[in-house]
Amino acid sequence: MVKAIMHGCNGKMGQVITGLIKADEAIEIVAGIDTYTGITNDYPVFESIEKCDVKADVIIDFSNSAAADRLLDFCADRQIPVVLCTTGLSEEQLAKVDEAAKKVAVLKSANMSLGINLLLKLLQDATKVLAPAGFDIELVERHHNQKVDAPSGTALALADSINESMGNAYSYVYDRSQVRKKRDSKEIGISAVRGGTIVGDHEVIYAGADEVIEFKHTAYSKTVFGKGAVEAAKFLAGKPAGRYDMSDVIQF
Amino acid sequence: MVKAIMHGCNGKMGQVITGLIKADEAIEIVAGIDTYTGITNDYPVFESIEKCDVKADVIIDFSNSAAADRLLDFCADRQIPVVLCTTGLSEEQLAKVDEAAKKVAVLKSANMSLGINLLLKLLQDATKVLAPAGFDIELVERHHNQKVDAPSGTALALADSINESMGNAYSYVYDRSQVRKKRDSKEIGISAVRGGTIVGDHEVIYAGADEVIEFKHTAYSKTVFGKGAVEAAKFLAGKPAGRYDMSDVIQF
Amino acid sequence: MVKAIMHGCNGKMGQVITGLIKADEAIEIVAGIDTYTGITNDYPVFESIEKCDVKADVIIDFSNSAAADRLLDFCADRQIPVVLCTTGLSEEQLAKVDEAAKKVAVLKSANMSLGINLLLKLLQDATKVLAPAGFDIELVERHHNQKVDAPSGTALALADSINESMGNAYSYVYDRSQVRKKRDSKEIGISAVRGGTIVGDHEVIYAGADEVIEFKHTAYSKTVFGKGAVEAAKFLAGKPAGRYDMSDVIQF
Amino acid sequence: MVKAIMHGCNGKMGQVITGLIKADEAIEIVAGIDTYTGITNDYPVFESIEKCDVKADVIIDFSNSAAADRLLDFCADRQIPVVLCTTGLSEEQLAKVDEAAKKVAVLKSANMSLGINLLLKLLQDATKVLAPAGFDIELVERHHNQKVDAPSGTALALADSINESMGNAYSYVYDRSQVRKKRDSKEIGISAVRGGTIVGDHEVIYAGADEVIEFKHTAYSKTVFGKGAVEAAKFLAGKPAGRYDMSDVIQF
Repeated sequence: MVKAIMHGCNGKMGQVITGLIKADEAIEIVAGIDTYTGITNDYPVFESIEKCDVKADVIIDFSNSAAADRLLDFCADRQIPVVLCTTGLSEEQLAKVDEAAKKVAVLKSANMSLGINLLLKLLQDATKVLAPAGFDIELVERHHNQKVDAPSGTALALADSINESMGNAYSYVYDRSQVRKKRDSKEIGISAVRGGTIVGDHEVIYAGADEVIEFKHTAYSKTVFGKGAVEAAKFLAGKPAGRYDMSDVIQF
Repeated sequence: MVKAIMHGCNGKMGQVITGLIKADEAIEIVAGIDTYTGITNDYPVFESIEKCDVKADVIIDFSNSAAADRLLDFCADRQIPVVLCTTGLSEEQLAKVDEAAKKVAVLKSANMSLGINLLLKLLQDATKVLAPAGFDIELVERHHNQKVDAPSGTALALADSINESMGNAYSYVYDRSQVRKKRDSKEIGISAVRGGTIVGDHEVIYAGADEVIEFKHTAYSKTVFGKGAVEAAKFLAGKPAGRYDMSDVIQF
Repeated sequence: MVKAIMHGCNGKMGQVITGLIKADEAIEIVAGIDTYTGITNDYPVFESIEKCDVKADVIIDFSNSAAADRLLDFCADRQIPVVLCTTGLSEEQLAKVDEAAKKVAVLKSANMSLGINLLLKLLQDATKVLAPAGFDIELVERHHNQKVDAPSGTALALADSINESMGNAYSYVYDRSQVRKKRDSKEIGISAVRGGTIVGDHEVIYAGADEVIEFKHTAYSKTVFGKGAVEAAKFLAGKPAGRYDMSDVIQF
Repeated sequence: MVKAIMHGCNGKMGQVITGLIKADEAIEIVAGIDTYTGITNDYPVFESIEKCDVKADVIIDFSNSAAADRLLDFCADRQIPVVLCTTGLSEEQLAKVDEAAKKVAVLKSANMSLGINLLLKLLQDATKVLAPAGFDIELVERHHNQKVDAPSGTALALADSINESMGNAYSYVYDRSQVRKKRDSKEIGISAVRGGTIVGDHEVIYAGADEVIEFKHTAYSKTVFGKGAVEAAKFLAGKPAGRYDMSDVIQF
């Protein structure tokens, strides 16, 4: 059983991960770190990482950037691999991540969702088979009505992954209403639907001769990022120093 | 059992309708009309409508505009209602349709699909309930890669029907990639996917607080137009003179 | 602006509704009732309904059955309509609901979701058009892996609504793997998918000749029930005494 | 450009393939074989394979079992690889296929669809990642109302492929309505929807913690089998003697 320290255990994601790990037989939380101690957990909670003397195989971090430097020092020092999910790190901090990764295993990824990271890989395989056979590729993503950017970063990452597998031969098309012309086979159409509180749906469509193949990912809440972090932690325990990302966790 | 004459019986749609009616216990074809007589049917086939002396309750027409004038004269003369599915009528012919409709029942509709015409009605009811409750409305349509226009005429018809039910308060948005801003609640987003040989999919999405309601129509072939014509014929038999369209066939 | 009292304001659903109403310009919470007072709200909170002297147009109740009797007395006494969402009422309490409804407007429904209640109505219209045209009807529902019953009560309610519109001529089929035979047109197939944490998806499929029409409802969280309660409250304010349910709220 | 002989060129599938190849720049038909010669093609048509003296790189066969023996002899003799799509071969003929494959490349597969064969591979990769992370797996297939068996052979093939990748640890569940119990994680639920003229939809659902990943295949007509045969022909041209199937064509 992998022993994990939850860094930022009393934040929203910390509590989500606490719940996920409770239902997982391959990993357990042996200690938590949080400046806020108003929540009672099944494990001991320390106010700062330095005060924690519990032995662990891995640290999962969902706290804030202010605590990142000390966390990295601690991990390098104690030789405990760390899954770093805190966002908004400064350039200096990102450099420090690289430094730390020379001494201990550090996993950091743009998107922590297991499903999206799996699709990033599978779509490359699918494209290599279907694109030469004449299938057209389109993406449709859906997000809530408060999102200001379109298409989503994840949609673009999926398109980029597809594109990369074909030597970046595709261009992206966001609007077909302004021209009257047939689709070019070297296009990837990307449509963005906005409405309600939709957390994030991504659909990739391969359309060929009387045959359509679709890959769809639906997130129901931010729990998906917690789930990815737990899988990453199980993967990272025992790994040698180095920079890792979610694509390393996705092993066929 | 409704007795029908199939005008244009040996064309592609005429044969589709012949097959559909064979499996329908409420209607039968008693005669066909076609200049091409190389196909053997279960019913007698005449080279022109004037030569047909078989009694019928309704005529289904899927031929070509050249034959429309004589067909309308025949129907008015013999008092046989007609489902007119031939497209490409001239302005003079359209005026003649109105004239004929003063003497006999004539049904003509922009889209003969039963499903699309049903949705045109149901979406108005759905919108009246969901729009005031804060649901956002979006459309996604999919068509084959040879289609030059986007969005499809059917998508626009669906959007117009929704819009009409709310006093035409909505504007349509075709591209969100060029601006960084939150969705306005008075928008209907319309996305067009193009690929392969997709005959025609239309999806209307109502997205609210943690709740999404979707209405989806998928056409697998042009048979859907034949099916609508058959239902229209069953409806039109026995009806008094007048102009009808598919919305009259859709009776709750 | 409708003035509402939130009965059970500090419970999970009470807080959800508090958030929903904050974003709604047609209704506001003027007071809350809860025995637990550890949460700070934008409105005054009273420990019991009797202690509340704030004037209101409607009460939304998401508390527990123990408080139901006093709530009903209070509503009848003060002539404030009530949306009663508490479940698990005893037979005596259900009789008391009927008694109270003679003096004041009381809304109580098996399923509070706006979308599901809308579908219950629309499906009847769709069936009346599509069933006579030979469309087959099937339901697929999806729920989380902890649900012990299948199909869901909501799936059965949808099937019953469809069935009722056709004179209850259909029978339900849950398994096709044990027989080798063609589908009977008087069947409604009902499939239950179970997996993960899916909150509740319901899909109704009308399949005809090369044409499929689908109605799909997706719940992302229990917020959908809160949303329905808010709409019900806006509807109920000012209504005369009587029993109401969500179908009354769904007005085309 | 690959030069192909179309064996059974004037049958339904032969004509479908003729159309598909006309739009494909990597392959052309140089001759056709058919006992029926009433159709005019862009290529010469011979009444039997023995009469054909046109040089070719590969033969695509969609004829009937009666012609299979002579076809296999011809291919072995002339050293022309063959994509064998004729079904209903006898045991003797199947043995003959194996014999011929010692001398020439022979490709024969249970399902010729490119998309289904791609999914058979991708699902194994997806399962290896998602199953250990606690995702539940479910299949839903849809077919027309004339199909007598359920679930479809393709659905079972997909389930078997998934199951194989996890050491055949799963059992299949076809009906959940007869028991009241939670889903077991070692189940694959398989649901069969029947209605209208649906050609064949297959959907594989991986449901995890607030995350669902779906793989969906839709066939709009039997053209999908023709498309697979064309890709198989392009692959097989120039290959050494041996038995091949569609999984060989799917190369990432």
